[in-house]
Amino acid sequence: MRAAIFNKPGLIMVGERPDAAIVEPTDAVVRVALASVCGSDLWYYRGETPYEPGPIGHEFIGIVEDVGADVRSLRTGDLVIAPFAFSDGTCPHCRRGLTSACTNGGFIPAGNGDGGQGEAVRVPLADSTLVRVPGSGHSDEVLESLLTLTDVMGTGHHAAVCARVTTGDSVAVVGDGAVGLCGVLAARRLGADRIIALSRNPARQEVARAFGATDIVEGRGDEAIAAVLELTGGIGVDATLECVGTGEAMETALWIARPGSMVGYVGLPHGVEFPVVQLFVRHTGVFGGSAPVRTYIPELLDDVLEGRIAPGKVLDFVTDLDGVAEAYAAMSQRGAIKSLLRVSAI
Amino acid sequence: MRAAIFNKPGLIMVGERPDAAIVEPTDAVVRVALASVCGSDLWYYRGETPYEPGPIGHEFIGIVEDVGADVRSLRTGDLVIAPFAFSDGTCPHCRRGLTSACTNGGFIPAGNGDGGQGEAVRVPLADSTLVRVPGSGHSDEVLESLLTLTDVMGTGHHAAVCARVTTGDSVAVVGDGAVGLCGVLAARRLGADRIIALSRNPARQEVARAFGATDIVEGRGDEAIAAVLELTGGIGVDATLECVGTGEAMETALWIARPGSMVGYVGLPHGVEFPVVQLFVRHTGVFGGSAPVRTYIPELLDDVLEGRIAPGKVLDFVTDLDGVAEAYAAMSQRGAIKSLLRVSAI
Repeated sequence: MRAAIFNKPGLIMVGERPDAAIVEPTDAVVRVALASVCGSDLWYYRGETPYEPGPIGHEFIGIVEDVGADVRSLRTGDLVIAPFAFSDGTCPHCRRGLTSACTNGGFIPAGNGDGGQGEAVRVPLADSTLVRVPGSGHSDEVLESLLTLTDVMGTGHHAAVCARVTTGDSVAVVGDGAVGLCGVLAARRLGADRIIALSRNPARQEVARAFGATDIVEGRGDEAIAAVLELTGGIGVDATLECVGTGEAMETALWIARPGSMVGYVGLPHGVEFPVVQLFVRHTGVFGGSAPVRTYIPELLDDVLEGRIAPGKVLDFVTDLDGVAEAYAAMSQRGAIKSLLRVSAI
Repeated sequence: MRAAIFNKPGLIMVGERPDAAIVEPTDAVVRVALASVCGSDLWYYRGETPYEPGPIGHEFIGIVEDVGADVRSLRTGDLVIAPFAFSDGTCPHCRRGLTSACTNGGFIPAGNGDGGQGEAVRVPLADSTLVRVPGSGHSDEVLESLLTLTDVMGTGHHAAVCARVTTGDSVAVVGDGAVGLCGVLAARRLGADRIIALSRNPARQEVARAFGATDIVEGRGDEAIAAVLELTGGIGVDATLECVGTGEAMETALWIARPGSMVGYVGLPHGVEFPVVQLFVRHTGVFGGSAPVRTYIPELLDDVLEGRIAPGKVLDFVTDLDGVAEAYAAMSQRGAIKSLLRVSAI
C-alpha cells in the first residue's frame, strides 16, 4: 500500500509499505478515507523534535476493512473515527476517562506501524478505540468535522475542560492554530459568555469569530496581556486555554488568568517554564496533557451530526495523499491552518 | 501594650508597643485571647526569609475592644476569629471567595502594625474580615480549635479543595506539620475514603490517625513514592495535598498523584520547581496559593461548635505571651507541632 513516509526534517513523501494487516485478534484494519496533518507533526517536519524515519500521521477516519477474531463491536464497512491514542477502555485510567494514559495503550503510529497519512492503518484494541459513526451519506462538511474529532477538536475541548470553562465564563484562548480555534468552539459549547481569541491572522480571526469568539486581541506578549486585562477590567479571564506549547504563549496565559482560575494547556510544552512563586501568589492553577479524545468523541460526535458544531472549518488546505509534501509545507509556512488529505472515497 | 517583637533570626522577645487603636473608621481593635505560631513564622525565625524587625504573628482569636464609626456587624465584647488576611468582601476576588487576593486587602501584621502575637491588634476592614463566634462559655478545646481556623485548618482545607478531594477518594498528604495534619482532617471531612499521611514522627502520626488517616508512610523521597504507589496498586492517589513548600515535598507529591489528578499546594514554595514535561505527560495539575481562610471560616466554625472536628489537637505546646521565645524554639526544633500562647482570659 502507499503511505506518507517521513525521511528527514522537511522531507516527507509517499512511499510503498507492506499492506496493513491484522496482527493481534483485537486489531482492526481501517482503510483511510480522510487524514490530516497535526501541528505536532510539524515539530518533526521542522526538525524541532527528533523523529525516526518511517510512517507518520495520527488523524484519520475511514472504513473498517478487516477485524481480528476478538473484535465484537465493529464490522467490515463501518465508518469509524480513530482517536490518536489507542486504549483498552478497562484500565484504571480509562475507567476514569483518561484514555490517553491507558496502561495498555499507545499512540498511532504504534512503533514503526502504520501512520494515519496512508491508505490503511492497523489499529490496536479496536473495540475500545474506534468509534463507529451512525448513519450514512454524510456530507463532506460533516466528514471533515468528524475528522477533527480524532485530535484537534477533542484537544481544544480538553483545554477547555482542564481550564474548567463553565456557563457564563469569560475565556481567553492563546493560540490560533487548529487546536486553539477548536478551543474557542469548545468554550462556546460549554457556555462561555465572552471568548477572547489571541490572533494576528485575518483568516484565523474569521474562523475564531465563526466559532464564537466575541473579541480578538492582535498583540503578543506584554501587549496582549495588557489588552486582555483591559477587556476584563484589570481582573483577567475566568478560564484560560493555552494551545501553543511555547514559553511565550504560556507566559501570556499565566498573566491573563484571573486569580483563582485555571490555565488548561494541551500543546506539548517546548521551552515552557512554570514560575512557581508567581503561580502561588496569583493563585493560578495549571492542568493539561495529551487529551483523552476517545472519551470525548461520543458527545462531540452527536453535536457534529446534529449540526451544532462544525469544527471541520479549520481544514483550509485540501489535497490528496500524493500532495502530502505540499500539505506539510502549507501548514509549516502558516499559509494553511490545517491540511486535509482526501485519501479514498467513502 | 506588650507584644512579641522579631529582632533578628532566632531572637523574638516581648516588648512594649503603642496600644492598638482605631485608625480607619472600618477598623476594630481586638484584645487577643489566644494566639499561635505559624510554620511560616519559622521561615523568618530561621533566617530563611527576610523579615523587618518589628511585631509578628497573624493567628489569633479574641474579644472586640473597640470599633470604628463605620463598623456595623461587630460590637465590643464579641468573640471573634481573625483570618490571617483582611479583605473587603466586595472586590471581584472576594465575590468569588478568593479573599486572600482581595484588591483592598492585606496581611496581618499590616505594614509595621500590630502582630497577632501581642495583647491587642488593630484589624482593618473589620466587618468583612472578622467572624463573630456565636454562643458563650466555650471550652478551652473549642477555643483552641477556633484558633486554628485563623490559618492552619483553613489552609489544610484549601489544599484539599485545590486538590479536588471528593467522596470516596484516596488522598495523600505530604507534610506532617499543623497544616498537613489539618489537611488530613479536611480530606476526611470532604469524604475521602483512604487517607495516606506521610510522617516519620510518632506523635504526629497519632494526630494524623485521630484526624482520619488510614495509612501512614514513614519513608521520604523515592522510598515514600514507592510506598504510596504500592498502597494504590501502582496508580497513585486520587488527590494529593502538598503542605510543606519544599522541592522534595513537591517532587514526592507529583509522583504519587495519579494521572489526571490535582496536587493542591499551600506552603509558600521555597526551592520548588514544576517539571513541565512531567506534568504534561503524567496529566498532573497543580493548584494552590495562600488560602482564602475567611471564606472557609463559617462552614468550619459550625463543624467545630457542633463537635464534628477538633483541629485544636495540633496545638501541643502551651505557654503565655512571655513564653513566646520558647514557643518558637519548641516548633523550630520540631519538639512541638504548633505552639499556643494564652495571652488573656476570655
